[in-house]
Amino acid sequence: MEKKVISKAVINRLPRYYRYLGDLLEKDVVRISSKELSERMKVTASQIRQDLNNFGGFGQQGYGYNVEYLHSEIGKILGLDKKYNVIIIGAGNLGQALANYADFERRGFFVKAIFDVNPRLVGMSIRGIEIRLMDELEEFLKTNEVDIAALTLPKTQAAQVASDLAKWGIKGIWNFAPTDFNLPKDVTVENVHLAESLMKLSYRLSVKEKEQQEKEQQEKEQQ
Amino acid sequence: MEKKVISKAVINRLPRYYRYLGDLLEKDVVRISSKELSERMKVTASQIRQDLNNFGGFGQQGYGYNVEYLHSEIGKILGLDKKYNVIIIGAGNLGQALANYADFERRGFFVKAIFDVNPRLVGMSIRGIEIRLMDELEEFLKTNEVDIAALTLPKTQAAQVASDLAKWGIKGIWNFAPTDFNLPKDVTVENVHLAESLMKLSYRLSVKEKEQQEKEQQEKEQQ
Repeated sequence: MEKKVISKAVINRLPRYYRYLGDLLEKDVVRISSKELSERMKVTASQIRQDLNNFGGFGQQGYGYNVEYLHSEIGKILGLDKKYNVIIIGAGNLGQALANYADFERRGFFVKAIFDVNPRLVGMSIRGIEIRLMDELEEFLKTNEVDIAALTLPKTQAAQVASDLAKWGIKGIWNFAPTDFNLPKDVTVENVHLAESLMKLSYRLSVKEKEQQEKEQQEKEQQ
Repeated sequence: MEKKVISKAVINRLPRYYRYLGDLLEKDVVRISSKELSERMKVTASQIRQDLNNFGGFGQQGYGYNVEYLHSEIGKILGLDKKYNVIIIGAGNLGQALANYADFERRGFFVKAIFDVNPRLVGMSIRGIEIRLMDELEEFLKTNEVDIAALTLPKTQAAQVASDLAKWGIKGIWNFAPTDFNLPKDVTVENVHLAESLMKLSYRLSVKEKEQQEKEQQEKEQQ
């Protein structure tokens, strides 16, 4: 496969393809045309073909895609053919939710430890994963290979912890704190900003409300 | 202000502007130039000016932006000058995390009730918000005005609940289940797909790993 730069928009769509193909696999669907897939996913068939062409195609003209093969190939592109050791920092509700999400394991993400500053949580465990005191983090990272740290901390603590993690060799950070970090370029950060997602929802609701009001106003004026 | 269609990319950036301006406000910063703001946010100053020009500007040439005014105006665009009544469906860890996040209230999102199918949770409360049985949902929506429902349900249940909510008049859904819905156009859905976010991280990690390996290979060959 030729090496080329894949646009961020394509990358953002890949996990969704992977999810839909996984759902099809669960339903024992063997083949799917780009037309059928496009109807399910509500994107155009040409968009799908274009996106997948970035990775060399996968389609057989007239025969559609082999679901299992395409699912597995997209999985490889997404790095899901590897195993990732994950730690969770912050054992609050959100940290516990992540630790409890068994589906992550099915995709190769294994939670190895949970850390928290609260000594009262230490010794407790979630799905067999022990909660440890933050003080043990550096030592833990010396003796365990960890690929990804999920940060579910208040924003006041998150930046310091993130820069410690970078110093101690962590290369992937899954950040849930409402803040951005200033980290070396070799550290990859993926943010989940919940408050920003909620604001996008309120924006769209408020645009629709305004449109509705204007429509009603116009109807009144026409009467 | 003239009415025009604002691109999705601009909308996606607005909550981040709002967050940065909120941080500046907390630090009692009164004015900021687009240059300073751009350095903090790691976007170009011209991008900031362009984005804000969509909404009529707000800047005064040479004087920079008034932080409080800009924060409040962007808040209005995002619909944050209104109050939203929110219910959470699914009282697991994630639902509890959302219910516990007091910051949402500060922005106008008030959690009014939490629903779950598990009768053992009924009667418990989180931050004073009662957990109710799912069976009560329809009745609750008849007697309470609810703007947004946050769905933290397994994907097997989420689609049915979402279509019930639409039928009962809910116009905004904040969906955490790893599935897309087929709902009437007047229902706005904002998705938080955690597994997809994690896959984007593994993609980027795996691209960097490949680059690293290729670099090492080249160095070997050159020796």
